[in-house]
Amino acid sequence: MTIEIKPCERIDDLQLKELKIIQNPNWFCFGLDAVLLANYAEIKSKAKVVDLGTGTAIVPLLIYGKKNPSQIIGIEVQEEVADMARRSIELNNVRETIQIETMNLKEAPKVLGKAKFDVVTTNPPYMPAGKGIVNPEDQKAISRHELLCDLEDVIRVASELLNTSGKFFMVHRPLRLVDMLLLMRKYDLEPKNIQFVHPNAGKQPNLMLIKAIKKGSPELKIDKPLYVYDENGNYTKEIHEIYDGIWEEREK
Amino acid sequence: MTIEIKPCERIDDLQLKELKIIQNPNWFCFGLDAVLLANYAEIKSKAKVVDLGTGTAIVPLLIYGKKNPSQIIGIEVQEEVADMARRSIELNNVRETIQIETMNLKEAPKVLGKAKFDVVTTNPPYMPAGKGIVNPEDQKAISRHELLCDLEDVIRVASELLNTSGKFFMVHRPLRLVDMLLLMRKYDLEPKNIQFVHPNAGKQPNLMLIKAIKKGSPELKIDKPLYVYDENGNYTKEIHEIYDGIWEEREK
Repeated sequence: MTIEIKPCERIDDLQLKELKIIQNPNWFCFGLDAVLLANYAEIKSKAKVVDLGTGTAIVPLLIYGKKNPSQIIGIEVQEEVADMARRSIELNNVRETIQIETMNLKEAPKVLGKAKFDVVTTNPPYMPAGKGIVNPEDQKAISRHELLCDLEDVIRVASELLNTSGKFFMVHRPLRLVDMLLLMRKYDLEPKNIQFVHPNAGKQPNLMLIKAIKKGSPELKIDKPLYVYDENGNYTKEIHEIYDGIWEEREK
Repeated sequence: MTIEIKPCERIDDLQLKELKIIQNPNWFCFGLDAVLLANYAEIKSKAKVVDLGTGTAIVPLLIYGKKNPSQIIGIEVQEEVADMARRSIELNNVRETIQIETMNLKEAPKVLGKAKFDVVTTNPPYMPAGKGIVNPEDQKAISRHELLCDLEDVIRVASELLNTSGKFFMVHRPLRLVDMLLLMRKYDLEPKNIQFVHPNAGKQPNLMLIKAIKKGSPELKIDKPLYVYDENGNYTKEIHEIYDGIWEEREK
């Protein structure tokens, strides 16, 4: 079997169960947020999972490597990016577990069915449309700005896909906390945990991880803050553990 | 002038501009939350301030001692507690700046007028009515449970009292974050800052401080977390600074 690698693409070793990922550094390479999201998501074995806005399929690949879901469907609107993700799935020979569907995530409940999934994960575009200069033809822009879907679409679709008591995990910017919580309540996703991620102990958080439960009872817990770097500029013990966790065997 | 001190009452020295407070330890004595709230509230000199659910007037007294507002009105529903607060005001001879009004805070906009204040502070009851065993005749219960007003009343009233761009400062439990943010949006109080207060660096927060602005633009910042105790069980430097701040001269 030959997997095509296109100009400007590269293959990165995830060092997790020999998984590899094809990325194009001109577009978008995965960052800490995807790693934190895959670590934060609680996924029982045999769970059926959807990852909204999956990009290069980094979240499905990390979840595949760390947990033991029966199915992960990655939704990606950009055909070229979805094609790259599909080639990573082929390269890793994991097509029985991970499927990539090319569509605007707004179509997902109609295509995949409502209330059929146990977990939805998403690392959505962080920036509202119209903020800053964006080129709508640009893959980076579509990954970063709410050009083809907005936060309300993401949350409504997640709610529609999840069965009752299904879990939703998202990484986003604290700036959007109020919008996020309002929309979750609107669409029956009850926020249960939030973890704020700070560059270091002296700085405000620039990321947040959230867990919500479909039709859950209201009881929010704020987790201990997560600091990325220590006072010497090195990764903290907690970040090392999360990265090391990637290398652990997934649950049997 | 003679100030009556009733059985079971005591006079505590706030060690701030020689201010004193009358408290009854059988009812409710002020805690760290009131000190943190008074410290967190940004109050310009000459500001007109209302403190909702003022209890023994600890927040007005600390604000008087630390800032330089022209007027602070404390609203307290329990006549015996309001009486104790009034005697503290007399004891400190600050009746020109601090007034205590006995009423359910739901009446405050009608009595005091709408959109006439620059700042509203509140350390409201944390517990919803009906949670746990409460005696509605009990002063502690009224201070702790939403028996005579609920979170929606507090937020609606704060919004009605504030003029445009007026500031709202509240201390509450993280458990109520979602309700709090939804209600603030509902009543035109835009959340601008939240600080979570953790018992120590290893624990989840059990308090949060929030700043909202009447008709403010949406832009929430999560502050650095505040830890109360260090690993040895002593107050952290930040808490020492806040308590020491009480002893500083108020702004001239």
